[in-house]
Amino acid sequence: MFNIALFGAGRIGQVHAVNIANHKETRLYSVIDPYQANAEILAQKYQAKIQTTEAAMADPNVHGVLIASATDTHADLIELAAQHNKMIFCEKPVHLDLERVRQCLAIVKQFQVPLFVGFNRRYDPQFRRMKNLFHSGKIGKAESLLITSRDPSPPPAEYIRVSGGMFRDMTIHDFDMARFILGEEPCAVYAQGSNLVDPAIGLTDDIDTAFIVMKFPSGAMVTISNSRRSGYGYDQRLELHGEKGLLTAGNIKENSVEFWGENGCLSAKPEHFFLQRYHEAYIAEWSHFVDVIAGRVTPETTGFDGAQALYLADKALESLLTGKEIKL
Amino acid sequence: MFNIALFGAGRIGQVHAVNIANHKETRLYSVIDPYQANAEILAQKYQAKIQTTEAAMADPNVHGVLIASATDTHADLIELAAQHNKMIFCEKPVHLDLERVRQCLAIVKQFQVPLFVGFNRRYDPQFRRMKNLFHSGKIGKAESLLITSRDPSPPPAEYIRVSGGMFRDMTIHDFDMARFILGEEPCAVYAQGSNLVDPAIGLTDDIDTAFIVMKFPSGAMVTISNSRRSGYGYDQRLELHGEKGLLTAGNIKENSVEFWGENGCLSAKPEHFFLQRYHEAYIAEWSHFVDVIAGRVTPETTGFDGAQALYLADKALESLLTGKEIKL
Amino acid sequence: MFNIALFGAGRIGQVHAVNIANHKETRLYSVIDPYQANAEILAQKYQAKIQTTEAAMADPNVHGVLIASATDTHADLIELAAQHNKMIFCEKPVHLDLERVRQCLAIVKQFQVPLFVGFNRRYDPQFRRMKNLFHSGKIGKAESLLITSRDPSPPPAEYIRVSGGMFRDMTIHDFDMARFILGEEPCAVYAQGSNLVDPAIGLTDDIDTAFIVMKFPSGAMVTISNSRRSGYGYDQRLELHGEKGLLTAGNIKENSVEFWGENGCLSAKPEHFFLQRYHEAYIAEWSHFVDVIAGRVTPETTGFDGAQALYLADKALESLLTGKEIKL
Amino acid sequence: MFNIALFGAGRIGQVHAVNIANHKETRLYSVIDPYQANAEILAQKYQAKIQTTEAAMADPNVHGVLIASATDTHADLIELAAQHNKMIFCEKPVHLDLERVRQCLAIVKQFQVPLFVGFNRRYDPQFRRMKNLFHSGKIGKAESLLITSRDPSPPPAEYIRVSGGMFRDMTIHDFDMARFILGEEPCAVYAQGSNLVDPAIGLTDDIDTAFIVMKFPSGAMVTISNSRRSGYGYDQRLELHGEKGLLTAGNIKENSVEFWGENGCLSAKPEHFFLQRYHEAYIAEWSHFVDVIAGRVTPETTGFDGAQALYLADKALESLLTGKEIKL
Repeated sequence: MFNIALFGAGRIGQVHAVNIANHKETRLYSVIDPYQANAEILAQKYQAKIQTTEAAMADPNVHGVLIASATDTHADLIELAAQHNKMIFCEKPVHLDLERVRQCLAIVKQFQVPLFVGFNRRYDPQFRRMKNLFHSGKIGKAESLLITSRDPSPPPAEYIRVSGGMFRDMTIHDFDMARFILGEEPCAVYAQGSNLVDPAIGLTDDIDTAFIVMKFPSGAMVTISNSRRSGYGYDQRLELHGEKGLLTAGNIKENSVEFWGENGCLSAKPEHFFLQRYHEAYIAEWSHFVDVIAGRVTPETTGFDGAQALYLADKALESLLTGKEIKL
Repeated sequence: MFNIALFGAGRIGQVHAVNIANHKETRLYSVIDPYQANAEILAQKYQAKIQTTEAAMADPNVHGVLIASATDTHADLIELAAQHNKMIFCEKPVHLDLERVRQCLAIVKQFQVPLFVGFNRRYDPQFRRMKNLFHSGKIGKAESLLITSRDPSPPPAEYIRVSGGMFRDMTIHDFDMARFILGEEPCAVYAQGSNLVDPAIGLTDDIDTAFIVMKFPSGAMVTISNSRRSGYGYDQRLELHGEKGLLTAGNIKENSVEFWGENGCLSAKPEHFFLQRYHEAYIAEWSHFVDVIAGRVTPETTGFDGAQALYLADKALESLLTGKEIKL
Repeated sequence: MFNIALFGAGRIGQVHAVNIANHKETRLYSVIDPYQANAEILAQKYQAKIQTTEAAMADPNVHGVLIASATDTHADLIELAAQHNKMIFCEKPVHLDLERVRQCLAIVKQFQVPLFVGFNRRYDPQFRRMKNLFHSGKIGKAESLLITSRDPSPPPAEYIRVSGGMFRDMTIHDFDMARFILGEEPCAVYAQGSNLVDPAIGLTDDIDTAFIVMKFPSGAMVTISNSRRSGYGYDQRLELHGEKGLLTAGNIKENSVEFWGENGCLSAKPEHFFLQRYHEAYIAEWSHFVDVIAGRVTPETTGFDGAQALYLADKALESLLTGKEIKL
Repeated sequence: MFNIALFGAGRIGQVHAVNIANHKETRLYSVIDPYQANAEILAQKYQAKIQTTEAAMADPNVHGVLIASATDTHADLIELAAQHNKMIFCEKPVHLDLERVRQCLAIVKQFQVPLFVGFNRRYDPQFRRMKNLFHSGKIGKAESLLITSRDPSPPPAEYIRVSGGMFRDMTIHDFDMARFILGEEPCAVYAQGSNLVDPAIGLTDDIDTAFIVMKFPSGAMVTISNSRRSGYGYDQRLELHGEKGLLTAGNIKENSVEFWGENGCLSAKPEHFFLQRYHEAYIAEWSHFVDVIAGRVTPETTGFDGAQALYLADKALESLLTGKEIKL
């Protein structure tokens, strides 16, 4: 049984707490959160300790840390955990500044501690199935990938202000997905965007609607279609076109009931948001990390992946600002 | 170029007139209808003669007749046409009285004239494709067939009164479909029905909602689900379950546009009614009949089929009235 | 925290064990199974006791019993539990003999103990949503309900031999579903069946393919289409047609990935069998039973429901054997 | 009855010949084609004359011309027809050289003759329905439009060589569609492309796979996903995302029959190619042009539309060659 210290008891921390507690090889050992109230709720629910960062890092009973705290604390906590020889699961991103990410990864490398970066969508059974079918040769060589990724509704402007901007906060998942599905690094990126959803987002100098095009050395291309607000739930779809046909991964609908009436056929929306849509993915990524802790595998999704996705976000922003395709 | 005399210039006569005129081997030669106005419209549109029944039958230029007149005239016109050696295309049913049908078919047999009975649904590309896939062995032996057949809205009670009742008027198509798909004759029939759609239909001692179950010598079974009113367009579906899986023939939707919004996904209704849904089927059955006229084939759908479907309707009614399964 | 004694540690007992253990208000207190090995696996996994029937019944720490043992033990265990004043969750059926069921329910009534009978499908979110939409008036009055229910593959003949036959073993769920959805008791039933799937089933004098038609006092009708083997996964669908349209509850597919190629579009099968398809339903029914134990509600699904479904199975069998519609 | 002279009796000329002949207000009066054999087939089938270009232009009985000849003859024929005061229906494009197009349109303007340019997809009932729903306010303001447009299989390299390249030959339809749906002129275009489908296409210095991004003054953006080969039929889809939701126009499948078996559910491919997919669109655009001839309306799709689509193709090519977004 591995003991896990959870940093951050907010929305995403709570998702992980359930999975840690439910997994037969892990126990929620302690919770660390500056908001004591949040920490207490989880501690009580799962009979875990409340610790300070220092105590948790120094505690020899802690085998692994799960970092789900505020984004700007990730890199510091990773470094601390590496220095204390803990296995590290860190929510994306490592940091919003690429230079800082690279410093942090150097520390991790120095201490030779496994670091898993939580790109949850890689563990979605639909997307993974698509990737596997592609890599098994089902459609031959990849030619074009369309990623549609729209949130149900925009976050408040205060969130936007500290988010690093749409590309670093939201599209980063799609950059990672493109790399994950194709198994290649892009050689060019172009981005176009607008502020259409919420004027308050525009006031923070950010956009809320975007198209990104990437080209890969094999000639394969990717388009990402992003919006901060869909109007119809969480829209998360992939279409991979190859030599021999098309693979699509559609949305999961909230239910399978349809109503046929005078106005046509009404069926359900896609599942509302990431907590529902990626419920299984969160369980699967935790299961993978437990395999890492147990020494059965090395992390599939690493600090390098975190750095690459951020690098693509930075370059997409450069493209948006200059109106030029950026060579990578 | 074969000259066709069209008996009946009403709704269904007009459908056939277009197809006769458009087919490269046939010409709408004449129109016969007691309502002169209807006849004139078609005659003018297609530069056809207006004839009396007697004149048309006696006219050596007429190669074939298409009988789309009132139901109670069908058997008489078939006999006349047979006596005048015309090729005969008759809309279903031959007659509402099975004894009269059999007399009529005896006359046809005596004069050795080809008689095609217009069970249009057999020529629907979807249903035909299903039948072909089944007979090619795709699902092995047939086990159960579900026929869903619902009209968009009920006809007026005056129509019901002369229709012969739901089984002889509406379900007759489904009895024929069961025989067509399975290629077997049933050995038992059971019917259950209700008057739920329109009380005026109940006042004519008819029903408007029914389930029929038939058993076939192979052990295969069929259920027909009927309603005089769907509330969502013309519902025409088949599901054939066999040893190795399921074949389904779904509705054709009015269009492929969907709207995704707060309330879910709204897509189009099935095509409204038989003129739309079976548009291609009417063209295909005419094409088949032209092959018959030209001597290239014999009728696929014959007076015997008309008699069998009516026989099943009669027996289903007997079952409904007695609450017993009827052995055939 | 309520302590639960689980009778039966086989396949379905294991499903319930997880749900008992995961629910925040219940604990798997003890396991009772004549196959000691099965009992030990669960006991160890959930740190539960192994008890004898007598010990469990007499144990004042046991608040409720979950009966998932062999069918022929259900009625005896229910009576014992009632006499010991335990809350009772019993898998369907109470017994295969209706007279025995009624005796048993009389005992339960005498001791005034809540008895919940596990018709799991009532707790499927899809079917429940359909029922709720119907009862909220979405489609007006019910006219016809089609229940399609096919298992992925037939059980061995040894199972069939002790199952009570297809209607009492398999269709019983569908009889219950008809009553659940419509909220009415049927007034007539007719059944037709064949042995098509496996000759070994025929040798037990049972069928494996059936159509059942029921009529209800409101005029609404139900058809059940059953097969012991689908060839394409677990097929569990409902279509409820009413005055104002149609409600359908479709299958849940194994995944949302499609492959478009030369031969068309290939999408996933329905989820394989009841453990997958009704995973959420098992959790939801347990949650309901916990509300019963806690005194917050009375059982939604009772011994009466168990008796009624069995009564319909008996009458359907009578219809099958006599070829007559049976009035109820 | 308007007499139509048809220039070009090849594949697309034959499509138009049927529609001209079937329309109640038009007659196929004459056919002009340097390949005498092609001209004769149509002339015989529709009892039309065979004429030379000069004779047809000079013939006072000719009310309108339909130009479906080789691309490089379009502009010359348009000018001739304008000078002879004929109503003009010209297949896209007017010419592959934008300067030549503009000269030609100046001539048309001078003679004040209606010119309809045949962007057939505008008359597809699905796309038109989407446009109408959008303009009726169904989804509020447009935010992003995805156009997926893939041919079933690539044309031979000889065709590619004289086609003007992928953007001018194939994407031109999609440029027009973007303008048609949004009702705005784009202000920036970016293109990325690859030669992945057929090396022979690469040898002509052309691409066969492309993503194009356009931005519009309203902030709305469009992505076009193109391929010369789908592997699964003709893929023609639109997704328009707006403030209040999403409108999608899906492919029309070849049939509605599905097979459910061990490997999942197999349904039909999209209709094979433009002759099938846009069958109704060709009829509808001809019907519109007849309204133009009759003086009831002015052309909805004009030389200006032809010029704009070509201009966008030229600018997309400039973007592809320079790796820069091009401001318009």
